[in-house]
Order: sequence, then structure tokens, then C-alpha cells
Amino acid sequence: MNSVDTSARFRTGSVDMTHGGGGRAMAELIRDLFHRHLNNPLLDQGHDAAVFQPPAGRLVLSTDGHVISPLFFPGGDIGCLSVHGTVNDIAMGGARPLYLTASFILEEGYPLADLERIVMSMARAASEAGVPVVTGDTKVVERGKGDGVFITTTGLGVVPEGVDIRADRIRPGQLILLSGTMGDHGIAILSKRENLEFETEIRSDTAALHGLVGEMLEAVPSIAMLRDPTRGGVASTLNELATAADVGMVLDEAEILIRPDVAAACELLGLDPLYVANEGKLLCICEASDADNLLKIMKAHRYGQDAAIIGKVTEGSAGLVQMETGLGGMRVVDWLSGEQLPRIC
Amino acid sequence: MNSVDTSARFRTGSVDMTHGGGGRAMAELIRDLFHRHLNNPLLDQGHDAAVFQPPAGRLVLSTDGHVISPLFFPGGDIGCLSVHGTVNDIAMGGARPLYLTASFILEEGYPLADLERIVMSMARAASEAGVPVVTGDTKVVERGKGDGVFITTTGLGVVPEGVDIRADRIRPGQLILLSGTMGDHGIAILSKRENLEFETEIRSDTAALHGLVGEMLEAVPSIAMLRDPTRGGVASTLNELATAADVGMVLDEAEILIRPDVAAACELLGLDPLYVANEGKLLCICEASDADNLLKIMKAHRYGQDAAIIGKVTEGSAGLVQMETGLGGMRVVDWLSGEQLPRIC
Repeated sequence: MNSVDTSARFRTGSVDMTHGGGGRAMAELIRDLFHRHLNNPLLDQGHDAAVFQPPAGRLVLSTDGHVISPLFFPGGDIGCLSVHGTVNDIAMGGARPLYLTASFILEEGYPLADLERIVMSMARAASEAGVPVVTGDTKVVERGKGDGVFITTTGLGVVPEGVDIRADRIRPGQLILLSGTMGDHGIAILSKRENLEFETEIRSDTAALHGLVGEMLEAVPSIAMLRDPTRGGVASTLNELATAADVGMVLDEAEILIRPDVAAACELLGLDPLYVANEGKLLCICEASDADNLLKIMKAHRYGQDAAIIGKVTEGSAGLVQMETGLGGMRVVDWLSGEQLPRIC
Repeated sequence: MNSVDTSARFRTGSVDMTHGGGGRAMAELIRDLFHRHLNNPLLDQGHDAAVFQPPAGRLVLSTDGHVISPLFFPGGDIGCLSVHGTVNDIAMGGARPLYLTASFILEEGYPLADLERIVMSMARAASEAGVPVVTGDTKVVERGKGDGVFITTTGLGVVPEGVDIRADRIRPGQLILLSGTMGDHGIAILSKRENLEFETEIRSDTAALHGLVGEMLEAVPSIAMLRDPTRGGVASTLNELATAADVGMVLDEAEILIRPDVAAACELLGLDPLYVANEGKLLCICEASDADNLLKIMKAHRYGQDAAIIGKVTEGSAGLVQMETGLGGMRVVDWLSGEQLPRIC
């Protein structure tokens, strides 16, 4: 098969069961699609595994399955999302991400041209993040047994000396910082899914945050906790942390930013933006004396321009997250008990 | 929710969309199912990522999606298979597997009791292999958008000093060893799928081979290549290697073992066992002078009892795999061109 055949096939063809069969068709798909776009020296070794010499330091391993629907959405697609999601999980461990792996589960009949768009977006995101996809796997399931494309990415990172991100380092008196507006990703997906029209298009905030985290940790290696408020939003994430650290948290509603169009969409859809997923935002918990320094660093970074100190860690009410409302009242910000938005990542 | 509720729910309940939503239902599923069965110190850290100090040496990273159908089959299930598959990919890089990650994509409505059986089987396999599952992820897709359970596992391993497994170390004059009978896994799956009855039940050979590989490499660190002949079978694997190393290969049909019931099933189904998947067998390519030593070690191991020297690497016919047949003839063992058995792993 020559390259002319390949591009013709990618314009018009679709995934079939032979692409997962372990034979020539699969080898060609891997060569002409995955290797062509994601190429890097480790992937080019062409083994079932990537071999490399790690830098010194503790390692972090994280994995994330991506089943988002729709696969393409304002601001991104499953390809870049699957890079950002795992890069961010690694970064939230305080680590510098080194390598990614990617496992594709493809549905028979999915257009190869769309698959190529996804792989190219993945390649672009990996290249921008400086984190190569070093090994992968492809499986194909019959029509009706999958949903186009699922991608599981796994990341490996290294923790800089002196960094120790752990929920049990959260202590009363520390402050809670948030890097930007809430709910953009979830509302972008839902708008697309429900065909909602707004004056301006709401775009996902999907982004790789390891650059921002790197700058923050370089200035303040003693940061206690980092977490990206994805599924379940900032409310679920903080509840999880408050429970794990056995502390209370009090948030200041006025400091939590929500874009007006996102707020309007949430109103319309009956959603609380505190429970809506983000894919390019982070929560940081640090000593009160470090907060202003970190805030300045965050505001100077493209992914932290709207950062704010949104609350504090308290002694009493262990496991409870509360919020001071505009009127001076206090309400409990509970766990998200069930499904709010399915297949958001 | 107390533990009585949990076990009752696991007996009768099923996966619903809230289990992937990022809220309380997901946290409970993770705690009561995944953490309970797969527990180990790293997983118990309870983060989105596992942090650890690696041993010195080159690292190997490998990922594998598992979409096998049916999920339960004679000799195993998707749970143990997803451990064995990735442990073996790591071992075939010459490495000692250290850690696994697991990403679950669950279909709404799948019985929790069956999911628990799968997770328990995974836990048993991980424990037997001595390779803990240190972090994971769960997603849920709507009924009809998945197929019960898909599991992507990723493994990290460390390569012992002096070991260098690479296709381009394959050289003419080297010998090819195979650790046992061909086709057991694929035929076990297909028999189950097609409701075929044989006098004796054909069982999958699914097994973790890193123990066997460890003993082989300890005796002969200079092994050139290792590979497990999974999808596409021994024929596809050897074609891939012959192409990568730009060498020819000649196999001796008489030395390739096939269980009589597997041979009969292949006959019935019109399959060539050389193209049928294995999940507990390995190919080893080594210097001729090391072959007898390795064969002895393999035969002494529970997963290599039927090992044999099945062929040699040749100078001519680069990229071509041929087989000497019983009658003294020679036939080409070509690539598997399309699908033979879908969803075999």
C-alpha cells in the first residue's frame, strides 16, 4: 500500500474489525495513523513497550479513561482532552510529566478521517505540552458495542526534590486558591449535546496545567495540595479533600468566578456551576503566608489569569465544606450525590 | 451506607450512570469494590495518581486495552487477562514489572456482582504476579454504548542491568524458541462464543510470564528478543520480527506443538492455529549456543514445560517466514491479512 492509497482511504474509509485483528491491516493503521502523527524516538522503537532512562526522583503514575460525548466540542476534542486530562493528573501530584501511553478502543464503522483528526489533535496537544505518547494499543469492537472512540491515557511523571503534595498536609489556617472560572468545560459539552445556542460560543477550558504548576512549585515548593476540579466540579473535589484531611473549609462565594454565559446556561439547565466539570483549572491549598505570592504567579500565567483566593481551611466542622453567600449567610456545599453530567470527560 | 448495604447491592445491583459521575456514588464504588479487593499501600494513598521511588535502571512502559468477549471464559476472565496481558508486555521488554494501573469503562446496567468477580480475579492475578494495581479510573457509558466491561491496564517495569531486548539484535544463525502449545487461548474463547462442545474443555493459557522470563534472563542476559504471540498468533508475531530485523526465518512444523483438541477445533472452524492468539506463551530468539540452556530452564518452569526450539533465523529471504513441513516441503507463513478472531483480548 502506498501513501496515495492511504490518504484516499483516510478520506473515505472507516474502522473495520481487521484494524484490531493483529494482522497487516492493524500494522498499517498503526504505521500510517498513529506513528505518522505521534512520532517520537521512543514510539518509533515500534515495540509493545517503550524503554527509557528515568530522571532521578519519585515517580508518579496516573491513568484516565476518556469517553466524552460528543467527541468534538467547542474548544477541543477527545484527542487533546485525553492528553490534557492525564498531564493534569500528573501535575496535580506535583510532578513534571515525562511520558504518556494511549490505548484506543474504536467502534467498527467510525470514519477514519475523524479518527485522524482526533489523533492529530492528540499529537498537537502532546507536542505543545512537551510530553510524548511513547507507546499505545488499538482495539476494535463491533458496531453498537462502543461509541466511536474511547481513549485511555496513562502518564508517568517525576516529582521535584522537596515537593510533597498530599491531602493529609492540608491544615487549618491554610488558604484555598482557584485558578479561574468554573464550569466552562461541562457547559461547553452540554451546550453542544443539547444544541443550545448562546450569543457567544462557550468553549471548553481544556488545557495542560503542568507549566503553571511548575512555576508555582518553583516559587513555593511547600504547597500542601493541588487538584483539578474535573468530574463533580469544585464542590465534589473540595468535599473529597475535606474528608480526606478531616478539616472544614469555608468558601467565599464572591471570589468564585463564573462567566456570565456559563451562569446563564447553568440557570437555564438547572445546574449548579460548582458541580460542573472543568478541564483546565486547578485548586491549590497552601500556607496563608504563601498565598499572595502564588496568586501573583498564577495571574501572570495564561492559564491562571482569573485566579483568586476562594476560601480557607478551618478547624471545626471536619469534612464539611461551607460557603459564605453574598448576603452574609452560610450554606453547606455538599457532595454531588448522583449523576449530574454523564460522559463529560 | 454500611457494609451490609454494600454486599446486598453487589448481589443484586447494576452499574448506573452515577457510578461515573464523580460524586458520592462513584466514590463508594471505588471504595467498596476497587479499593477493597485491590488494596495495597500505593492504591490506598487514594489520589488520582500513585507516587513511588523507582529502583535504578531503565524503565519500560506498556499499555493494553482489553475488550474480550465473552468476559468470562474457560481458564480466565477479562480481570486476570488484563493483568497477565500487560505484565507479559513488560516482561517481553526484558523488564521486571513493578506496578499496574487500571482504567475501567463500564456499561450502564452491567451487574455489579459480575463486576466484583472481575475485580476479584484481577486482584488475585495481581497478587500472584506480585504486581500491584496502584491507581485507576472508572467511567460509565450508557447502555448500548459499550459492552459490559472494557479494561485498559498500563504497566511500568525496570530492565535489569545488561539486558537489551530489541528486534534489531536478531541476527542470522540465532535460534527461535517457543514456550508451549499454540492457539489455546483463541480456541477457548471461540469455543465459548460459538457454544462448541469438545470432549475436554479447552482452557485459555492466560498466565503471567515474568517469572519465567526472569529465570531465562538471569541465565542468559544476552537474549536478543522476546515476544508473546498474542493477537495474530505466532505467524504474525514472527512476520513482524522478521520484517523489523530484516532477516528470514525458517520454522520446523514438527516442533510446533498444538493440543489435539485445539487442532480438531481449528480444523472444524477452518482456522490455522499459527494465527490464533495465545496469552501465556512466549517466543525467544537467542544465540544458538544458548538455546539448549534456555530450553532446559523453560522446560523446568510451569509455564514452559512444552518448550521447543521451533526454528532458526536465516540470512536470505529477508522479511520472509517459511516453514519446513512434515513432507520435506517448504511453505511461506504469511502475515494474517485481515480479521481472524475479533475481540480475543
